[in-house]
Amino acid sequence: MSVKFAVLGHGVVGSGVVELFYKNKESIEKRAGTEMELKYILDLREFPDTPYADKFTKDFNDILNDDEVTSVCECMGGLEPAFTFVKSCLERGKSVSTSNKELVAEKGDILLAIAKKMNCNFFFEASVGGAIPIIRPLHKCLAANEISAVSGILNGTTNFILTKMYNDKMSFEDALSLAQKLGYAEKDPTADIEGFDACRKICIISSLVYGKHVYPSSVYTKGISQIDLNDVQTADSMGYSIKLIANVRKLDDGRILPVVMPMLVPHSNIISSVSDVFNAVLVDGDAVDKVMFYGRGAGKFPTASAVVGDLIDSVKHKITVFSQSWDSAENNDFVAGIDSFKAKWYVRDNEKSYITDEEMTMSEAEMLGTAAIPVLEQ
Amino acid sequence: MSVKFAVLGHGVVGSGVVELFYKNKESIEKRAGTEMELKYILDLREFPDTPYADKFTKDFNDILNDDEVTSVCECMGGLEPAFTFVKSCLERGKSVSTSNKELVAEKGDILLAIAKKMNCNFFFEASVGGAIPIIRPLHKCLAANEISAVSGILNGTTNFILTKMYNDKMSFEDALSLAQKLGYAEKDPTADIEGFDACRKICIISSLVYGKHVYPSSVYTKGISQIDLNDVQTADSMGYSIKLIANVRKLDDGRILPVVMPMLVPHSNIISSVSDVFNAVLVDGDAVDKVMFYGRGAGKFPTASAVVGDLIDSVKHKITVFSQSWDSAENNDFVAGIDSFKAKWYVRDNEKSYITDEEMTMSEAEMLGTAAIPVLEQ
Repeated sequence: MSVKFAVLGHGVVGSGVVELFYKNKESIEKRAGTEMELKYILDLREFPDTPYADKFTKDFNDILNDDEVTSVCECMGGLEPAFTFVKSCLERGKSVSTSNKELVAEKGDILLAIAKKMNCNFFFEASVGGAIPIIRPLHKCLAANEISAVSGILNGTTNFILTKMYNDKMSFEDALSLAQKLGYAEKDPTADIEGFDACRKICIISSLVYGKHVYPSSVYTKGISQIDLNDVQTADSMGYSIKLIANVRKLDDGRILPVVMPMLVPHSNIISSVSDVFNAVLVDGDAVDKVMFYGRGAGKFPTASAVVGDLIDSVKHKITVFSQSWDSAENNDFVAGIDSFKAKWYVRDNEKSYITDEEMTMSEAEMLGTAAIPVLEQ
Repeated sequence: MSVKFAVLGHGVVGSGVVELFYKNKESIEKRAGTEMELKYILDLREFPDTPYADKFTKDFNDILNDDEVTSVCECMGGLEPAFTFVKSCLERGKSVSTSNKELVAEKGDILLAIAKKMNCNFFFEASVGGAIPIIRPLHKCLAANEISAVSGILNGTTNFILTKMYNDKMSFEDALSLAQKLGYAEKDPTADIEGFDACRKICIISSLVYGKHVYPSSVYTKGISQIDLNDVQTADSMGYSIKLIANVRKLDDGRILPVVMPMLVPHSNIISSVSDVFNAVLVDGDAVDKVMFYGRGAGKFPTASAVVGDLIDSVKHKITVFSQSWDSAENNDFVAGIDSFKAKWYVRDNEKSYITDEEMTMSEAEMLGTAAIPVLEQ
């Protein structure tokens, strides 16, 4: 008997999931250990010219009320109606795989708790780093480690812009225009440029690694719109690349400190070699030392690949994978604020640019000049 | 009730497994979902000064015949007695996690078949790339992909030597001496230098990705002992790093072509930024495009971390994870030989060094001059 699943949303990622499933159906079924059937695609639009036009429905209840459907891929994006739909599916014991980082960052704890209660799975590999396997390696292969820090280049748009500034000496504005022209940046690029996208992803990573939900509102977030071409070039001559880094570290007092900020990364750190739209996540564990995962952080098929990988896993695991989970955190006593962030800083004043000898807080660094940018220590 | 396990071998990796288990016991048990107890350590030597001196036994049958022991970590290395011990454990339904690449490369198919029959698990994350999670990501997170090629820097010793030649202009001999002095190379460095170690690892990766056992004897293997400092510097000035690359690709005729050879890697390829003793594996999938995994490929705790990660997984999965497996291949009709390997080549003759415009076979390239080194295309 075949396992039946549904795909919610037929946009970029959702259509990628459908196409990838049919393209590699034979090997996907072999890996899942069972025949699989796509039974429904939920979208308000119609796609009469696709080979699977008969699968479309506009009514979510068709999927929810069909007990044959045991797995669902959510690729709609945004908080609503995604949250309501995913919640309803889990409450009926249907496993869900999602690419929706906003959903996981804001509501992950609630959805994971329902999945646990109903003995099904809520998987979200695609929500961080697109194609890069990071959620499973973090919770599984590194299970024997205490993790002291994670640093990521988690937004392809900003990394593309910084690469163009670095390699081709383009201004921020020109690089942004090029990114928009190539389809790497949206018309309204705020979520990427200002770091909100990276913030959601470091929230998911922090929650998974440290076991309690970290909300985007508790994370100090600064984007790259104030990065000047002169700073990029000066930093380069000093042996550093400027990257938008999403970082979380464990403090000595047991709290964690997540931030999203442009940082100076030494050329000797492999993260500095991550260019263009590629993403990477560098993990420090007490046993493994440094491990890095690298790949395309976005795009139709890279993201679909992660969703389908989760789908295969949800078919194989009929009971909850409880370790890939975290608890609610009503108040964030364990999340430290930016005041606790100490680093050496790149400082520009009228006369010169330099890196401070001593570690200090951001407010101390900002008193020394303009363009204070911390140096990544990991 | 606690899950009881044994560790075979108390050398570098085995002692690392024991120390890491006790150090992070609380979080390991949380991730495994059960209490765990180390019941035996098998070694012919005695370690009276360790805090777990009472766990040692010299008799493998103590472990084999104890039905309470359901998981075993094999960290002895070498083919025998490791093969006999692991086979016996699996035949009794005990799951085994191993760091022994020789064992997996030569006997993986046999051991996987027994594990399947006995409904237990034979895990080997530590056998490739030490701390780097690569086996699980390959078979799991990338499950939705058809993989066209995998390239790895899979030997830390040779990568350290090539890095020293590249960065510090050391000769091969001086760099090897330094590696020996620092403990990165063995007294007899043949297995590393001549590529045999990397060969075993690409065999394991090839078997896993393409589903049939690939034996080391079917893989063309060339080491770095003939690499000249001049070639390293000339290649650098042309925009390439010379790396010992273990590569497998799928040919148009459906066969696969695994090789281990020094190759020229363009500086624009992230693999070229992998320095010192670090390892990396770059995977090309039809949906994900390029994904890379990076970390320490050897060392006591990095390798132990992978073994303990497998141990946790074997505790959680009481039935065989059949997808992380492959079939026997009595004859290797599906493995192509070096004659099928085509590339552009770096060629040195007396007058000059250059890269050929056309792709050609190795024998064609070698007729053009000395030091024919292929350019990595992936």
